[in-house]
Amino acid sequence: MARNTKLNRLYGRNSILGRLKENPKSIKKLLIEKDIRAGDVEQICKSENIPVCYVPEREFNNISGDIRAQGIIAEVEHFRYASFEDVLDKSLENLPVILFLDNLNDPQNLGGILRSAACFGGFAVVLPKYDSVEVTDAVLRVAQGGENYVPACQVNNLSWAIETAKKAGYWIAGAVVEAGEDLTGVRLNFPLGLVIGSEAKGIRQGLLKHLDLKLTIPMQKTKLSFNVSIATALFCYEVYRQRKKVTKEAQE
Amino acid sequence: MARNTKLNRLYGRNSILGRLKENPKSIKKLLIEKDIRAGDVEQICKSENIPVCYVPEREFNNISGDIRAQGIIAEVEHFRYASFEDVLDKSLENLPVILFLDNLNDPQNLGGILRSAACFGGFAVVLPKYDSVEVTDAVLRVAQGGENYVPACQVNNLSWAIETAKKAGYWIAGAVVEAGEDLTGVRLNFPLGLVIGSEAKGIRQGLLKHLDLKLTIPMQKTKLSFNVSIATALFCYEVYRQRKKVTKEAQE
Repeated sequence: MARNTKLNRLYGRNSILGRLKENPKSIKKLLIEKDIRAGDVEQICKSENIPVCYVPEREFNNISGDIRAQGIIAEVEHFRYASFEDVLDKSLENLPVILFLDNLNDPQNLGGILRSAACFGGFAVVLPKYDSVEVTDAVLRVAQGGENYVPACQVNNLSWAIETAKKAGYWIAGAVVEAGEDLTGVRLNFPLGLVIGSEAKGIRQGLLKHLDLKLTIPMQKTKLSFNVSIATALFCYEVYRQRKKVTKEAQE
Repeated sequence: MARNTKLNRLYGRNSILGRLKENPKSIKKLLIEKDIRAGDVEQICKSENIPVCYVPEREFNNISGDIRAQGIIAEVEHFRYASFEDVLDKSLENLPVILFLDNLNDPQNLGGILRSAACFGGFAVVLPKYDSVEVTDAVLRVAQGGENYVPACQVNNLSWAIETAKKAGYWIAGAVVEAGEDLTGVRLNFPLGLVIGSEAKGIRQGLLKHLDLKLTIPMQKTKLSFNVSIATALFCYEVYRQRKKVTKEAQE
């Protein structure tokens, strides 16, 4: 079965159900491994008039490769990036947070970040166009539907994007492994752009000068470091926790 | 090169450096891909009298397979589990936290949990002996040296271990996807056993009755869920944050 590279593939129940709920029109075709029961996914696709193809086991395995697809794959429109202007606009409601991801190269990490950011809600992602992972099938697989809830855009120049966000009223913080302010002790009650560095090198030198503050997750074992997707989730949690608390106190 | 299955392998610089620092005696041999510069790792191994073997590229690739080893692999003593008694004993100092991992099956997740737990410090891990991932090479690869700082033990029966911890003075909380108390609003200022369920099924029914409380990470998008390794990191962060704050206030 020839691959249309303008499409993405979603593998397995969770990813496909998430897409069916949020954007069924983006699903072009459902592939079901013959003799597999696809239950609700199959039913909903049919009721949405999405073509359903039953594929012999061998051919299905050729398509899925070593990916756990649970017998179902959806071919979907290629991921649509938001525009940076949209991200800025949308984000300014409710003290939002923009994650500037500086040269990530592991799809697992981008997928993980989309998943966590979607769970919390209120986050957007900015990626540089060059030297960075993009939103690929591998990213969508890890995002588990999170891509439906996190506007993500690509920009030519991350420095420019950060400066533009500053002018629009955002404070810019950078996640650094050491010598930043302790994340657990800083108030983050303003529109926030958070710069996350790459897996191996952290934030590039050229971006450091744009930072209004540096933040560090406190650790006992300073020779270790958090995985970048986990570190990002911890930052998102702290922001979310603080804002939740503020909202709650305001209501009381 | 025949594989000694009583040994584990550590791949790449970070994992090996971590081990050299904490437990160099556990390293039995360093393999270096011929013509690769292994710099400090090679020097330290030599100064610790660890045998160093230079392996032709082809043979090295056979050993590393598709794992990014950066040209260096260490053969180390098989991971030594702690005893549950040791975990209980050691843990009771400083309001510790024991993570009871109920039937995890993805080595990525166990490795990720060991890495994050090590970064915070003060955590121990209990795994059931059956139907659970063990500490394998794949786990160590993701743990990135975290295994050196997190006592991990295996028990025949997780229910028994949880009850034993309760008798020893621990409160037992379970991480649940919904309908638990909001993690951001609960004080966790007691010796804590935190039960984390498996990737697909959550906490098994038989364990739920042991819980003193259920905790949920608040989310905006309730149809999504956090990856188990990320969820565990968020729980660890919240515990760490609260205890850090208490220590700081006590000092002021």
